[in-house]
This record gives sequence, structure tokens and C-alpha cells, in this order.
Amino acid sequence: MRTQVAIIGGGPSGLLLSQLLHQRGIDSVVLERKTREYVLGRIRAGVLEVGFVNLMREAGVAERMDRECFIHDGTVISRDNLSFGINFKELTGSHVVVYGQTEVTRDLYDAREAAGGKIVYEVDGVEIHGADGDAPYVTYHKDGAEQRIDCDFVAGCDGFHGVSRQSIPLSVRREYEKLYPFGWLGILSETPPVNDELIYASSERGFALCSMRNENLSRYYIQCSLSDSPEDWTDAAFWEELKRRIPEEAAERLVTGPSVEKSIAPLRSFVTEPMRWGRLFLCGDAAHIVPPTGAKGLNTAASDIHYLYHGLVQHYQDGEDEGIERYSERALARIWKAERFSWWMTTLLHRFPDQSAFDLRIQAAEVAFLRENRAAQTVLAENYVGLPY
Amino acid sequence: MRTQVAIIGGGPSGLLLSQLLHQRGIDSVVLERKTREYVLGRIRAGVLEVGFVNLMREAGVAERMDRECFIHDGTVISRDNLSFGINFKELTGSHVVVYGQTEVTRDLYDAREAAGGKIVYEVDGVEIHGADGDAPYVTYHKDGAEQRIDCDFVAGCDGFHGVSRQSIPLSVRREYEKLYPFGWLGILSETPPVNDELIYASSERGFALCSMRNENLSRYYIQCSLSDSPEDWTDAAFWEELKRRIPEEAAERLVTGPSVEKSIAPLRSFVTEPMRWGRLFLCGDAAHIVPPTGAKGLNTAASDIHYLYHGLVQHYQDGEDEGIERYSERALARIWKAERFSWWMTTLLHRFPDQSAFDLRIQAAEVAFLRENRAAQTVLAENYVGLPY
Repeated sequence: MRTQVAIIGGGPSGLLLSQLLHQRGIDSVVLERKTREYVLGRIRAGVLEVGFVNLMREAGVAERMDRECFIHDGTVISRDNLSFGINFKELTGSHVVVYGQTEVTRDLYDAREAAGGKIVYEVDGVEIHGADGDAPYVTYHKDGAEQRIDCDFVAGCDGFHGVSRQSIPLSVRREYEKLYPFGWLGILSETPPVNDELIYASSERGFALCSMRNENLSRYYIQCSLSDSPEDWTDAAFWEELKRRIPEEAAERLVTGPSVEKSIAPLRSFVTEPMRWGRLFLCGDAAHIVPPTGAKGLNTAASDIHYLYHGLVQHYQDGEDEGIERYSERALARIWKAERFSWWMTTLLHRFPDQSAFDLRIQAAEVAFLRENRAAQTVLAENYVGLPY
Repeated sequence: MRTQVAIIGGGPSGLLLSQLLHQRGIDSVVLERKTREYVLGRIRAGVLEVGFVNLMREAGVAERMDRECFIHDGTVISRDNLSFGINFKELTGSHVVVYGQTEVTRDLYDAREAAGGKIVYEVDGVEIHGADGDAPYVTYHKDGAEQRIDCDFVAGCDGFHGVSRQSIPLSVRREYEKLYPFGWLGILSETPPVNDELIYASSERGFALCSMRNENLSRYYIQCSLSDSPEDWTDAAFWEELKRRIPEEAAERLVTGPSVEKSIAPLRSFVTEPMRWGRLFLCGDAAHIVPPTGAKGLNTAASDIHYLYHGLVQHYQDGEDEGIERYSERALARIWKAERFSWWMTTLLHRFPDQSAFDLRIQAAEVAFLRENRAAQTVLAENYVGLPY
């Protein structure tokens, strides 16, 4: 088989890239280890930057999103029961969009299938060959048979555990990592959200987040120990702990119900450099991970897709490789700012086991300063709605 | 002897308070352990917030300052030879004033003496009595004889090592501290400053600061090891190291010369709470220390004097104690924001021995964001010129 761009990974990054390239007449094949149903079963975040939404529009897959999404013009931050709003619209003129990642992925699958896009599911043993030369190709197993795709470029959209990053020799690759000494216990519940905007709550018992997918599907998180497991937490214990951490007036109107999903995720910051090796490009989780505070996960992937898509279009339409050659530099410049923001939001709002009394006072002073200072609120808002590409 | 306000410590805080009270007809006595010449011999910072200058004007001691000071409308920040300006005037409408602390203190001494203010030098064995009651008094030794001052209030302006803070029982006092794993090696040199604004330089060899007192008196600092001593550093070695850390074009035009002073200071953040115990009020270094990055030392003292002065005037003129009773709360709210800013500037610009590769990239991303983002520059500028009282 031959294609112009071989895309490893059928999550939202790979599908969006494939669909964007298709709109410009560039051919691609997507290889996915799992089934479509498995990918759609993953529970992920749902706060999207306008830049991401615009990419979905450019890809021609934003119709349902534009109809069903929720516009959030701000968010709420609280510490020790004192809460205040950050008004994105007033501070930046922009907003964020709440639309579940599952829905994004479903819309992309539907669009790729409607357009006759090539997605090969349930592949294994994927290997990338010759990425540092002029004729890369990808081999894999499908139904027990070895397959080969020859291509011009390989896009590695296969996540943190995927083969793409590992295909770059250690001699040219450098990894940067920070592990946080806590996790997030999250539940999904078929209840109306406690608030029409997200609430980021810092309390002496730890962090909590009130989020949502739609009018009758809420997503709540509490900071927990890394040694906890979801079975340690009954629904009742979760709701009780959540209520202790969020502002009282929110706790009073919180509607609880049985969890339909419950899981613990560790928090990690991770970046690999460079993000290009010859004709292989890393995108999204394959190259970087942010802690979820600040909702940058899917949005950083979209940022990579933006740079790669424009680089590939420049290559195929203008015969100019400047965008491809500078992909890593441009993507990383924006990624590191998103990493900084996610690290900062995490550090600002969580309790750390090794925080000194001085550290706690500084953290409180930073929240107090943010509550009062418009410039500090603008910094948060501009990062939250998304820095310019 | 009897006075209304006994002031422990004849540095700029105590003198300024004494002079301000005098303008409102409130009597005070200042007790100083050393001589006037000794106090004037201390080398201290010289970047003043407009709020401080306004207090000096209110005290009637700003005439020479207004004539001889330098207005700084901005500052320069560099990292790895890439430098950019923070324009205070454009971002905040305000500026800072460069006028040495030694000159501030000299002007205050002159004004107190001209007004017949009572300053007792070379006292020792100062003790504060009955601060938690209605009739406080201070005892001390002068020329071998025990003296006593009865008063309404005691202002503790006697610095970090003074007796005032120690007079508050440990049962009601809580201290917050952070020690930084490096010091500042500073020299004073009778050379023209390399730049008309301060340069805060972060480099892979550590931090450096180009500052000044006047047109022919420069003050330069480099981050150094806490195990270094000034004798380890010849003038030539200092200049060579400084040049490696500041932007190249600054290094090229740097005028070097013999040092007229050379010393190493450790960097410390420290706050004690509360800042009032009955009729005893702590001001300035007696209650809090900031690392010098961001030039907040004398300015945080001025902030305390502002709150205490207005509280005392309210007491004596209006018979209202609200300002006195809320002194600690108000002073600390502003102090903790200055502590946060000084900690942040220090953390942003120094190299730390335990920084991971990830931490270094985050630090670089924060400087890059600051270079590009007007809101982030505004946050720095508003803090640097001084948050509102």
C-alpha cells in the first residue's frame, strides 16, 4: 500500500490530521491498535480552545459540535470557601467550548468514514522504518499477516505508550518529566452539573474540580493519594469528600447520584524533544503530557496538528519545506508554555505533601493576588482560552 | 521619660515613622543601638516605590530626594543573552525612584534633628514591658545607667535581630521562613552604571544584577555559593564572571574599576505573624525579610509604616482604634503579596542546585512567556512599582 502520510493512532489527533489533509487533497492512512468502539469508550476531557474548534471547522466536522456544545465565558476559582470568577470573555474577548472528547472523536470517525478515509483497526506490531531517509515506510500485522505502507511522511499520533516516540533513537532524543505526588479520583455521574461554569477548588483537604459533559452528565474530581484505588472510595465517600472541598453554597446545591464511571489518574508533566526526526512527526500525547489542571491535554495535541497540517500543505501545495523543517521548534515553543501553565495551575491549587508553612502562605497569597488583580486574571484567562498559534 | 510612641530602632523605618508622627503633633522617642555614623555606613538598596516617596513627601523630607533621585520608567530582563524591557510607565502609568537608602536615612536624621526630635543613640539592653496591657514602657541602658520610657505604644523597627519580635511570646507568634541555596556577592564601584535602567540577568552560570546609586556609583551583584567569602573573589574575577552572565552588548560597554565595597548576603524569605501584640507593633525587617530580587526590602517597611502611621493618627485625632486593631491584618495582606513577588522573581531568575531538566525548561518557558505577553509584563510591573496600600 502507498499513501502520502501514514498516521499512527486513531484517536482525535490522528483523525483530525487525516480529515484536515483530506480537505486539501492529501492522502493518508490511519493505523489504530484497537477498535473504533474501544477508542470511543475512553473517558477524556471536554474543554476545548477556540483554536481547536476552528481546526474542527476547517476540517468540516464542526456541525454537531457547534449545535450541541456549551460556551463557557469564564470559570470559578475558590480557596478555603472564598470563590471568585475569571471572566474569559471580558478579559480576552474569547471563551472555551465544552464538548466531550468522545463526541469529537465520534464526529471525526463519521466524517472519515463518510469520505471513504482509510482507517485500519486492530493492527499490531507497528514499526516505522527509514524515517531519517527519503523513503519511509510502516510495517504492521493485521489479522496475522504482515503489511507495509510506503509513504512520504509518518505522523506519530499514538499516545504516550505508542511506538512513534520510541522510534526516535535515544541519541537524539531528550525527555523532560515531572511526576506529582498525588492523583485525581474522578467520577462521571448522570446528574445536572452543580454550576454552569467549572469550579477549581483549593482547600486544606486538597484540590477538587467540578466539571461537566452536558446538562445531565457531570464530571467531578478530587485530589487523592497515589496509593488509593477506586474501590477504596464508595460513591457516598466521594460525594462527602467533594462537598468538604468546594465552596459551601456549591456543596449545598450539589446533586449527587450513582457514579457511572470511577477511576484514578496520576498527574504527570512530560515533554520529549525534538518532535521531528527526519520524516517522522510526533503529535499530542506521543510527545507531551500535561497534568489535567487547566484542561490543556487535547488542546496541546490540536496545536501540534495545526503546525503539522500547515507544514504538510506547504510541502504539497507550494513545494516549500520551511513549515516541516521548523515543526519541532514551533510546536515546542507553544507546548512549553502550555506545560508551564498546567504546572502552574496544578501547583497553585493542590496541596503537596512536602509544602512548608511558608509555601502554603505563598500559595494563599498567590490566590489572593489573583482574586484582586486584573492583570493576573488576564494571564490566567489568556492561557486558559489558548495562546495564539 | 514619657512619650506617646516609643520607637525601637533608628533606621529608615523608625525615623520615617517618628517624622510622620511629628508632622501630626504626635510625640515619639527613637532608641538606636548604634551611632548615627554607623547606621549611615550600612550599604542597602536604593529602588523606591512611589508610595514610599509619597510618605517621605508627607513627612516633609523629600526635597533633596526629589532633586537628586533618578526616575526609572522600566527595567531590563535577560536570559541567555536575549534581553527585553518591562516598561513600567506604559504598563502601569507609574515608575520607581532610585535614591540610596543611605541618603534616605541621612535626610530623615537631618529632619528629625532640625525639628528637635528625640533620638537616643548607643543604647543597649532594650526591654519592652507591658505591651499586652494599657501602660507599656521600655527600659534600656545608656552610658551605664538604666533608663525608662513610659508610652502609649511601642513601634518595633529594630530589624531582624532586634528585641521587638522576641518580645512577643512564642505562644502567640508563628514564623514562616525559606532559605535559598545561594547568596549574592555584591560590589560597589565608582564607575558609571552600564545601563540607565537595572538589568536582571538570568544565565546558565547563575543570576546577575546591574544596579546603581548615581551617575558615578554602580552596584553589581552575582549569584554565588553560600560557602564563598568575599575574599575568594578578586575584583578581576568578579568583573569577568559578571560579564559572562549579562547580555553581550552590556558586557561590551561595561566600565570596570576597583570595588569600594564587596560583600556576600544570603537570601532569605521570612515573615512573623501577627505583627501586633497589644500595644507593640512590628515594622519592616523586625517582622519580615524578602530576598532582594525585585527590590522590595525598604518598600515593605514603608508599607508597614503607612498602616501604623494612619492607625496612630486615627487613634490620637479621632479616638478611633480600628486602624490599630487591624494593623497586623492589613500590613500582612500586603506583605505576603510582596513576599510572593520577591520569591517569584528569585525563583524565575536564579539557578537552583536541585533544578531538574524539566524545571529549567519551565523556567525558560516562563521567561519566554513574559517576553511576549503584555498581561504577564503588567503583573510584574504592577508588583515592581508597588501594589496599592
